[in-house]
Amino acid sequence: MKKEPLHIDLSKIENPNFLKDISYKNLDVLSSDIKDYLVDVTSKTGGHLSSNLGVIDATIALCRSFDFSKDKIIFDVGHQSYTYKLLTGRDLYTLRQKDGISGFQKVNESPYDHYECGHSSTSISAALGMATARDLKNENYEVISFIGDSSIVNGLAFEGLNNCRDNKHKIIVVLNDNEMSISRPVGGVSHLLRKFQFSKLYARSKNVFVRLSSKGRVGKKIYNFFYRMKNAVKRRFLTMTIFDNLGFSVIGPIDGHDIKGMEKAFVKAKRNSKSTMVIIKTIKGKGYKFCEEDKTGKWHGVSPFNKETGEPLNKPGISWSEYFSDLIDKKMMNDKSVVAITPATGYGSELSKLINYYPTRVIDVGIAEEHALTYASGLSISGIQPIICIYSTFLQRGYDELSHDIARMHLDATILVDRAGLVGNDGETHQGIYDEAFLYSIPNVVITMPSNTLEANYLFDQSFEGHGPFVIRFPREEVKQNELIYPFTYGKAIKLKEGKKTAVVSLGPIVHEIVSRSEKENLDITVYNSLFIKPIDLSMIEELTSYDKVIIYDVYGTKEGLALHVMEALNNLGYKGEIISICVPDAFIKQGSIKQQREMLHISLDDLFMEINK
Amino acid sequence: MKKEPLHIDLSKIENPNFLKDISYKNLDVLSSDIKDYLVDVTSKTGGHLSSNLGVIDATIALCRSFDFSKDKIIFDVGHQSYTYKLLTGRDLYTLRQKDGISGFQKVNESPYDHYECGHSSTSISAALGMATARDLKNENYEVISFIGDSSIVNGLAFEGLNNCRDNKHKIIVVLNDNEMSISRPVGGVSHLLRKFQFSKLYARSKNVFVRLSSKGRVGKKIYNFFYRMKNAVKRRFLTMTIFDNLGFSVIGPIDGHDIKGMEKAFVKAKRNSKSTMVIIKTIKGKGYKFCEEDKTGKWHGVSPFNKETGEPLNKPGISWSEYFSDLIDKKMMNDKSVVAITPATGYGSELSKLINYYPTRVIDVGIAEEHALTYASGLSISGIQPIICIYSTFLQRGYDELSHDIARMHLDATILVDRAGLVGNDGETHQGIYDEAFLYSIPNVVITMPSNTLEANYLFDQSFEGHGPFVIRFPREEVKQNELIYPFTYGKAIKLKEGKKTAVVSLGPIVHEIVSRSEKENLDITVYNSLFIKPIDLSMIEELTSYDKVIIYDVYGTKEGLALHVMEALNNLGYKGEIISICVPDAFIKQGSIKQQREMLHISLDDLFMEINK
Repeated sequence: MKKEPLHIDLSKIENPNFLKDISYKNLDVLSSDIKDYLVDVTSKTGGHLSSNLGVIDATIALCRSFDFSKDKIIFDVGHQSYTYKLLTGRDLYTLRQKDGISGFQKVNESPYDHYECGHSSTSISAALGMATARDLKNENYEVISFIGDSSIVNGLAFEGLNNCRDNKHKIIVVLNDNEMSISRPVGGVSHLLRKFQFSKLYARSKNVFVRLSSKGRVGKKIYNFFYRMKNAVKRRFLTMTIFDNLGFSVIGPIDGHDIKGMEKAFVKAKRNSKSTMVIIKTIKGKGYKFCEEDKTGKWHGVSPFNKETGEPLNKPGISWSEYFSDLIDKKMMNDKSVVAITPATGYGSELSKLINYYPTRVIDVGIAEEHALTYASGLSISGIQPIICIYSTFLQRGYDELSHDIARMHLDATILVDRAGLVGNDGETHQGIYDEAFLYSIPNVVITMPSNTLEANYLFDQSFEGHGPFVIRFPREEVKQNELIYPFTYGKAIKLKEGKKTAVVSLGPIVHEIVSRSEKENLDITVYNSLFIKPIDLSMIEELTSYDKVIIYDVYGTKEGLALHVMEALNNLGYKGEIISICVPDAFIKQGSIKQQREMLHISLDDLFMEINK
Repeated sequence: MKKEPLHIDLSKIENPNFLKDISYKNLDVLSSDIKDYLVDVTSKTGGHLSSNLGVIDATIALCRSFDFSKDKIIFDVGHQSYTYKLLTGRDLYTLRQKDGISGFQKVNESPYDHYECGHSSTSISAALGMATARDLKNENYEVISFIGDSSIVNGLAFEGLNNCRDNKHKIIVVLNDNEMSISRPVGGVSHLLRKFQFSKLYARSKNVFVRLSSKGRVGKKIYNFFYRMKNAVKRRFLTMTIFDNLGFSVIGPIDGHDIKGMEKAFVKAKRNSKSTMVIIKTIKGKGYKFCEEDKTGKWHGVSPFNKETGEPLNKPGISWSEYFSDLIDKKMMNDKSVVAITPATGYGSELSKLINYYPTRVIDVGIAEEHALTYASGLSISGIQPIICIYSTFLQRGYDELSHDIARMHLDATILVDRAGLVGNDGETHQGIYDEAFLYSIPNVVITMPSNTLEANYLFDQSFEGHGPFVIRFPREEVKQNELIYPFTYGKAIKLKEGKKTAVVSLGPIVHEIVSRSEKENLDITVYNSLFIKPIDLSMIEELTSYDKVIIYDVYGTKEGLALHVMEALNNLGYKGEIISICVPDAFIKQGSIKQQREMLHISLDDLFMEINK
């Protein structure tokens, strides 16, 4: 009797123990069911799709080979842990929603989550720390870093790898080589992974060898020596990679969709007493055609979409990223002495088409934020102005380079800080709310934020006028087209509305909502759009001293940016009126929609108008 | 007639052109004269010695092989550029003094300085940026990164190297392998550099080969094949290193004291059309016995010393670094669940002896600040508390890791921030004045600063009491022993002196000078030692509201730390008195003594008392 394929009810999984009793044939069924589940979930919630589809089989193999109630696993970046979440008993239909399942590993979410990431390339260092602790405490478990080919080339990952030889504490690194990562892999190491095969020289030597081995006694003697030689050469050619060089035992590459094959490798890695790397080759987006065919990174992170057509459910308008990409395009067309740089977020920053237009001047340096900024400094000091397109949260990785290599030498650079402010569903690890504060701690940096396209154009143009490092922040929102035309004076705020007694100082797109609501409510208040965050416009401050009450309203950053500096400037002029600041609090803000987050933090427009009406 | 050795008058050098007319024999004389000169200069001014003595010959060879009025060179870190400065016409007897020659390359100092560093491992990325600019502008010159074996293992350098293959713009990397760097080299790459020699297998194959080649016709045929094979194998064995893997042409290793040999290699590198690495082996501290024999890093950076005895001219008292090292020692002796981490500054942080006492628990991760912090997070989440000993300026490199990997998960960690405040002669690149500000932008971090040993002990103990990431900052000064005993309440400031009308809020060792001077001058003021910078003690703020004037005096940081947060807290309580802040300004502060710097910035005690007496 032919057995029916076994379909597990995915919503009933409590832990991964059941996996051990399933045949390989039925594991393939499970894998396919999980694929359908993940496509269905993300089509409703949005989230990371391609990377998760690619590692379903590997996650099954890992959960069968290790006992994660005791062994520890860190999914680097963490956004490819959906299958792991499912297999460890988490229903994903609340993924990335307020109070729901996080899009990343979260220690508080499950005893199976042992560490947390969100930013790339932390897993090797963290695993080494955990392994050190394990050995110092004489405990006994494996620590595994599961990392992709683009993440492993980041400097932090390399520092971790480089420390593994001295640091005798054993870890296992599973290198998931999917030849794609966010968009395309970049750099020498990626090239090397592509070369993971016998070289031409070895192939040629093999032919000669076959001919020689039939040549009698001398031939025989040669045969023996040559056989040893061949194996030595083969060994060298196969494994003399950067990772062997760093002291790892390397296993693979192995087909990352062959569960049985991976299990064998994982067991071997477990038995090995020294740090071991298992290289698996996976197909990103496996089993869902839109993902498999995607070469740009469009299906890396998705909004809710139609499963059949692949079309997004909500057609968004033009994003700020898109708008700035057009400004870059226009600039590059007219000015050859400009270069744009992205650290592996070309798709998110809407640079994909520009990379084709200007292949020598739009440069994806890979997940290498530090290098992006220091590379930019080398360009700038040599008379080519860099435009650095970077998410606020990832700019954190380049704090030192921005300070030491760009700001200290007062070099010109256009720094487009994308996803500034609250970011919504990605949650704590991706908030863009700290950059006002940390940028303020760097001398010479100009920090700005436009509220509409008119201001965006002006600020972008100004960034090429020799003001040094020039930051333009913008949120993860649709662009606000300008309805008004008004003139600018460099460094000056814009008074959008004139009233009495109370003045609101704000910035970014929300300023126009303040104006329209205050008009609707007939409130006689003054509204300033600060436009410049650093330095503060002192003529605005002087005008502010004539009001009884000044409210600084910043939904895009913590008080250490605009708010405290307006407050200080008022204090310096001896202002004795009331100063209220309504800003993002000094905290790590959990996932939810941006609207939900603002309400939760009491920084919504309602909160502002309650304060105005007090 | 025997020619006399030629002694060049070093003070008369205008540019390196004269080098081309000197015989190799006389270049050795010059090299020795420069050695004596550098020892003499640094014995008077202090500075970096060992690294500079090691690269005299290499710098001579570079200056003969390239034309640095057109070719560009970046000395990584920059502190080993003394010979370069001398050969490009700079007298070094004002080294590191106010208005004198910088201890690093400085663009404004000479047309021969093309870039500036101070922090490690920026040179490859910057060189690649400069080379890109060169090619986009169709210019024609070489760009050279001169980098040491410890600097090249930092993540930023790796990101730069990894980008060289895709990025077709040619650079030359001169890798100075001195097997020492600041103290000892760390990690897999260093290990690899040690292995730079024929392997045993190759040696064995050579013998067999010689025997075989005498065997007639078949032997001949084999000879030919084998000859090719041997060279291929040899090539592989010699150069299949991490750097070849990354796509570099590798030349060397070459004796870094053989000027002629290096010149040949540099010319070859110049002729090569693709990015080339020249590996040179140098002896750090060459020619001066104290430096040559130093294994700990003592002679890396020196204060003025006696050339004959090697003894420092001014016997310093116990430094804060030393004091905290003793606290760490006591803690580690009694508590096995504690690990100390240094990113290659073991000597500066006075950890050298602890590394011997606790070889498995005092961990030098090399110049890898990012890894140091993420590694610490892995330890902490597994129940081992990390003590991270790091200079304020280098903590900048780990900003993201401190935020994302430690603070976000609210993990316990003791973070000892050394060289906080103005640092004196190292100048702009090493100031420890920004950490209050950038740490304030990270949620969950506690920031403190002791003024004496009593407070240091208290804060150190508190850092193990589960408050999350706990920063203790201390300056590059001698310790202030406590004369008083007073009790502590967690989170509370210390009122050191009670008076009327004016209150001074300050922190760090200088608070005691404020008290003693105000007593001497019979000034009826109140003096608070804040002790905690974040969070601010709100009960102190409440008390402050009863004063007419509050002066916040912080000579260890910019206003974005203590000052603005005291100001904000006063504002929140509706304080209408006068608030004055005297802090380090938001700027990059040039070299000089700390005293000179404070005077120049108008933040000296005189400036404070002028404000008090207003």
